[in-house]
Amino acid sequence: MEHEVLRKLRAAMTGAGYDALVAFSQDNVTYTAGFLVPSHASNRFRRTITVLAGARFAAQIVVNVEENLAKQRSRFADIRAYNQFTQDPADVLADTLIEAGVAAGRIAIELDYMPAQDYIRLRERMPAATFVPCRDLYFNARMIKTDAEIAVLTEVGALTDRVVGEVLREIRPGMTEKSVAQIIGNKMLEGGCDGLKCQVGSGVRSGITNCTPTDKAIEAGDVVRIEILGDMKQYRSNVTRTAVLGTPTSEQREIWNVMIGARETCKGMLKPGTAVADLYRAYVKYLRDRGIEPTLKFLGHGIGQTIHEEPYITDTRSVVLEPNITCTMEPLYMIPGRMGFHVEDMYRITPGGFVPITGMVTPNDELIRIG
Amino acid sequence: MEHEVLRKLRAAMTGAGYDALVAFSQDNVTYTAGFLVPSHASNRFRRTITVLAGARFAAQIVVNVEENLAKQRSRFADIRAYNQFTQDPADVLADTLIEAGVAAGRIAIELDYMPAQDYIRLRERMPAATFVPCRDLYFNARMIKTDAEIAVLTEVGALTDRVVGEVLREIRPGMTEKSVAQIIGNKMLEGGCDGLKCQVGSGVRSGITNCTPTDKAIEAGDVVRIEILGDMKQYRSNVTRTAVLGTPTSEQREIWNVMIGARETCKGMLKPGTAVADLYRAYVKYLRDRGIEPTLKFLGHGIGQTIHEEPYITDTRSVVLEPNITCTMEPLYMIPGRMGFHVEDMYRITPGGFVPITGMVTPNDELIRIG
Repeated sequence: MEHEVLRKLRAAMTGAGYDALVAFSQDNVTYTAGFLVPSHASNRFRRTITVLAGARFAAQIVVNVEENLAKQRSRFADIRAYNQFTQDPADVLADTLIEAGVAAGRIAIELDYMPAQDYIRLRERMPAATFVPCRDLYFNARMIKTDAEIAVLTEVGALTDRVVGEVLREIRPGMTEKSVAQIIGNKMLEGGCDGLKCQVGSGVRSGITNCTPTDKAIEAGDVVRIEILGDMKQYRSNVTRTAVLGTPTSEQREIWNVMIGARETCKGMLKPGTAVADLYRAYVKYLRDRGIEPTLKFLGHGIGQTIHEEPYITDTRSVVLEPNITCTMEPLYMIPGRMGFHVEDMYRITPGGFVPITGMVTPNDELIRIG
Repeated sequence: MEHEVLRKLRAAMTGAGYDALVAFSQDNVTYTAGFLVPSHASNRFRRTITVLAGARFAAQIVVNVEENLAKQRSRFADIRAYNQFTQDPADVLADTLIEAGVAAGRIAIELDYMPAQDYIRLRERMPAATFVPCRDLYFNARMIKTDAEIAVLTEVGALTDRVVGEVLREIRPGMTEKSVAQIIGNKMLEGGCDGLKCQVGSGVRSGITNCTPTDKAIEAGDVVRIEILGDMKQYRSNVTRTAVLGTPTSEQREIWNVMIGARETCKGMLKPGTAVADLYRAYVKYLRDRGIEPTLKFLGHGIGQTIHEEPYITDTRSVVLEPNITCTMEPLYMIPGRMGFHVEDMYRITPGGFVPITGMVTPNDELIRIG
C-alpha cells in the first residue's frame, strides 16, 4: 500500500478534481518523497519534481548525480533522472505527464514556485492541459501532522527548549553574540540536530527583528534576545527567549508583562474551533489596550518541515484550528534603536485544547535575569 | 557614482539591448544589492527583487519585515516594501517597471527562477513588454570576480584549507562521521565563517557522491572522504580531501595516482585562452587512457557567491578561461558499494596562468594516511 502521505495527497488531488499533482519546491517535494535530495536546497538549477497522477501513477524526477540516493531513500519506486547539462527537466516532466495519460488534464502544480521557464515549456509541450495552483492543497495537507511528524517535532522542540535555557545560564558580561551563537550550535548538534540557525541580539541590537550574531560584546543592562531554529530529520523547531543582563528596569518589566499577558490570553483560545483571525485580533487588542502597537502583522505561524507554514496566525487567514495542527505563538515588540522583546514557543492543538511542545524546560514568564 | 557591480550590470544590460534587468534569485539579488536579505533563503514566499532600468533607475523590492535592514545595508537607495499578506510582489514589480518607463520595453528577467505565477501576473500587467532570460548576463558578469570578491574567496579558501588538514590529523579509529563533522563546524566558525556544510563519508560511504555525516564509526582500513563548503560574507569555499585510516592498498594507491595525474595535467592547461570544454576532454582522456570512467560529467565549476556557478568545466560549455575567473577542479571516482576518491581545490585564473586559492596548506598529492 502507498505511504500514508501519498494516499493523503492523492485523495486531496482527486477530491479537488485534479488529474495530477506536481511539486517542485524543497519542502513540498521532501514532504511527498519522504527525503531531501541533498542538492535540492543548495543548487537552484537542479530540479527535483514529484508527480502523482490518477489512481496509481507516481514518479520522481531528479538530477542524474542524485539518482542512486533517490533510488535508495525515496518513497517513489519510479525514479527518473535527467542530465543537468544536456536535458531540460521540464521536458522530462512533460514526457512523464503525457505517459501518465494527463496531457489534456487538469494539472495542480506549484505555480508559486516552479520557474517561469518550465511553465512556458510545459505549455508548449501540453497545449491541451490546464495548469492550476496547488499551494492550498499542499498547505492544507501539511498543516495537519501525522503521528510520525509530531514525534519528530516534539523531539527537536524539547532539545531546543533545553538548549536555550542552558546557554542563557552560561552568558557572562563580555561574551560576544557570536560566541553565544557558537555555544548554541554545539549544543544543538550534540543533541542530535542536523543543522540550525540562531539569532542573538543584545542591547540596541535586540530591537532588530532578524539579527545575525555579531562581534558585539554583551554588557550589563543589555536586553538579550535569542531565537533558535533547529533542524532535525527535515523538521524544525523555533523558540525565542528574552533576558536582561542584570536587573530589568520597570519599563522593561511593564512591557514584558504585557507580552506575557497577551500570550496567556491567546493560550486560552488555542483549541479546535478557534479561527486564527480571531486569535490574532485578540492578541492585537490586548496589546493596543495597553498602549503597545504589535511590531509584526502576525502572532505566530504553523511549523513543520518549514519554519513558516500554514496556519499563519493573522486576520488575513481563514483557517480554523483543528487537532494536530502545530504552530508557534510569538508576541514581539521592537523599539528600534533601543531594545526588543520577543517570546516564542511551539504548541500542538489537541481535541481538548493544546499541549505545549516547548516552554516546559525554559519558561519565560518573567524576563530572564542572566549574568 | 554607482557601485562598480551596478555599473557592470547596467553596462551589460545596455550593451545587450535590454531596457531593464530584474533579479529574483538569492545569489543574483545578493550580488546586485551587496547584501543578503535574511529571509530570502529561508522563506520562499518572501520575494526580494532588484530592478535596474535605463541609464539611472535602480530599486529593490523587499518584504515589509526586512525594510529597515534593507535601508541600512543595500546598495539601492530606493527600497520598496510590500506587505506579505495583503500585497502581490509581482504587482509591486509591475508598478516599479511602469514607473521606470519600460512598460513596452525589453525586460531581461530571471525566467529560470521567478515563479510562474509572477510571470503570469507581469504579462497581464505589462502586455506590451517583452520578457527575455537574463541567466547568461548574470553568469557572465559574476564569472569575472572583482578584487573585493577575490579577497573574500582567498580568505575563506585559506581557512578551509587549514581546517581540513587539522581535522584529518585529529581523526582516530572509532570516531563517528558526525563527530568529525562537528569538529569541522567548530573550527570553521571559530575561524570566521558565517556557516558551512560538510560531507564525511567513510568506508563504503566514501563511495556516495553526496554523503551527509552519519553515526557510522570510522574504522581501520576505511577510505575517508571529507568535503567542506564554507560560507563567509556571502562567498563560498569548496575543498575535498581523501584519506585512508591505516595503510592504503596498492589498488587505492593506483587509483589515486590516476586522479592526481589527471589534476596535474589539467593544471598545465589552467590559463587564459583555454576552452573549458578542452580542459574537460583532457581530464576524461587521461582517466579513460588508464581504465577509469569519470563518475561526474564535469571536472569542476566556478565558485563565488554560489558553490556551483559558471564556468562549469564540461564539454557542454563554450566558456574560454580569462583572468579573475575563480573555479574548482575536482577529479572524482566512485566505486559504489566499495569506496570513493575525490580531491578538490580552488583556483584563480591570472594573466599568466593560475594561482591556487587552496591546497598549499593541506595538499593531497598522495592519499593522506590518518589515525
